[in-house]
Amino acid sequence: MTETVQKDTYSAALIIIGNEILSGRTQDTNTMWIAERLTDRGIVLGQVRVIPDIEEEIIETVNSVRKKFDYVFTTGGIGPTHDDITAESIAKAFGVELEQNERAFQMLEEHYGLAELTEPRIKMSMIPVGARLIPNPVTAAPGFIVENVHVMAGVPRIMQAMLDHVLGMIEAGKPIMSNTIACSLAESTVAKDLSELQAQFPKLQMGSYPHYRGGVLGLSLVIRGTSKEDLEGATEQLLDIIRKHGDEPRALSIRTVEEQH
Amino acid sequence: MTETVQKDTYSAALIIIGNEILSGRTQDTNTMWIAERLTDRGIVLGQVRVIPDIEEEIIETVNSVRKKFDYVFTTGGIGPTHDDITAESIAKAFGVELEQNERAFQMLEEHYGLAELTEPRIKMSMIPVGARLIPNPVTAAPGFIVENVHVMAGVPRIMQAMLDHVLGMIEAGKPIMSNTIACSLAESTVAKDLSELQAQFPKLQMGSYPHYRGGVLGLSLVIRGTSKEDLEGATEQLLDIIRKHGDEPRALSIRTVEEQH
Repeated sequence: MTETVQKDTYSAALIIIGNEILSGRTQDTNTMWIAERLTDRGIVLGQVRVIPDIEEEIIETVNSVRKKFDYVFTTGGIGPTHDDITAESIAKAFGVELEQNERAFQMLEEHYGLAELTEPRIKMSMIPVGARLIPNPVTAAPGFIVENVHVMAGVPRIMQAMLDHVLGMIEAGKPIMSNTIACSLAESTVAKDLSELQAQFPKLQMGSYPHYRGGVLGLSLVIRGTSKEDLEGATEQLLDIIRKHGDEPRALSIRTVEEQH
Repeated sequence: MTETVQKDTYSAALIIIGNEILSGRTQDTNTMWIAERLTDRGIVLGQVRVIPDIEEEIIETVNSVRKKFDYVFTTGGIGPTHDDITAESIAKAFGVELEQNERAFQMLEEHYGLAELTEPRIKMSMIPVGARLIPNPVTAAPGFIVENVHVMAGVPRIMQAMLDHVLGMIEAGKPIMSNTIACSLAESTVAKDLSELQAQFPKLQMGSYPHYRGGVLGLSLVIRGTSKEDLEGATEQLLDIIRKHGDEPRALSIRTVEEQH
């Protein structure tokens, strides 16, 4: 992003590249990890796409989201094996060449030693021309940034380190805070009041989420927004709504910036 | 699907409608659940999209995937509150009206009783014209099917019951089996051999997934496909590759149809 004016919130899309999620072999946890950290920094995750390791799909997906969102993050497919085709696909998406990046080669050489720098490992130094590197403190093979697209590893521990690095560099917005209130009312009981409350606070986002715990149906009501004043005002009213319908709010989780992580 | 010739595999896309996943509040588990069951039935999950409760986004996403995939599944947004806009959005995506569905109304009346059939509950009987219903054995409010788009609840327990119902109705392909072999080799060590093995078995899908367990880097090698013969042949060779590089395959998980679930 070249603009210098700080916005209230930024938008982001996440592209998860990996057959292992689509086959049901692996439970994705990267989405929630990334979503939480973006939310803390006023970056609204607007879309997640899970796609297979297929070149045309990576190119098409990257090109269809990179104009629509301030930031794009990708995970997966930057390793040494035949199914790791992310770097090449990103280069093609931007119409640039893939080249052996000197700094990436050095990083790999320092980690593995020159004797152990086999062909598959050298492949991990192939980076789109003009990209900036994202260091990998775990296994050396770097991620990279082309314009607003941030290409990270899929292994959670490595992705997390790369994300920390990226989040330290990019423009952040106002943290998005949220209050979660649990009760045992039916969703339909509070529907009308909640709808009116939402209309009263158009800048806040309100959601209701029924859930089963121990076979009992419960309801989580969530209010989210960047204005502490609005959030507090709406929360007060929501507590009144629950009490009005004869229930006591049973758990009250207030998520402000200070309390997060 | 009107065609009657059984295909080897079918394709599917999953659309998860819900701000709670995008905000990082909720860990999605529906994707893995659905992916596993589709895989068992020879339905290849080719894409997952997580999108917010915004009408235009639901319409655009449904319309962009329903022509490309044999089946589309959606989860979320069919409850009674203001943020439950899936039924209306699906109707608009198909250019049909939303109407009070008599059978859906009956289902809700049987569950709640007429006296408790409040306006928000009646809202859950509003279904696109021409849709077929998906019963909800848990809270009565049905899902529905328009052409190849299957609209299900987001609450896992309800979604799972709806999915079972749907999977009993739709054409299935040949089950996709997989073998997972764990070893402690570096990904780059097996990269060349794995690439050659993949070239030898073009109908199989091979992936390598590094992971950390207890701080130790391990590697899972996965072979997937519908041909038992190919799968067994490739697995034998993969075991030889691991042994050739001085390691013993440490865990061998073979996932065939009989052993699943």
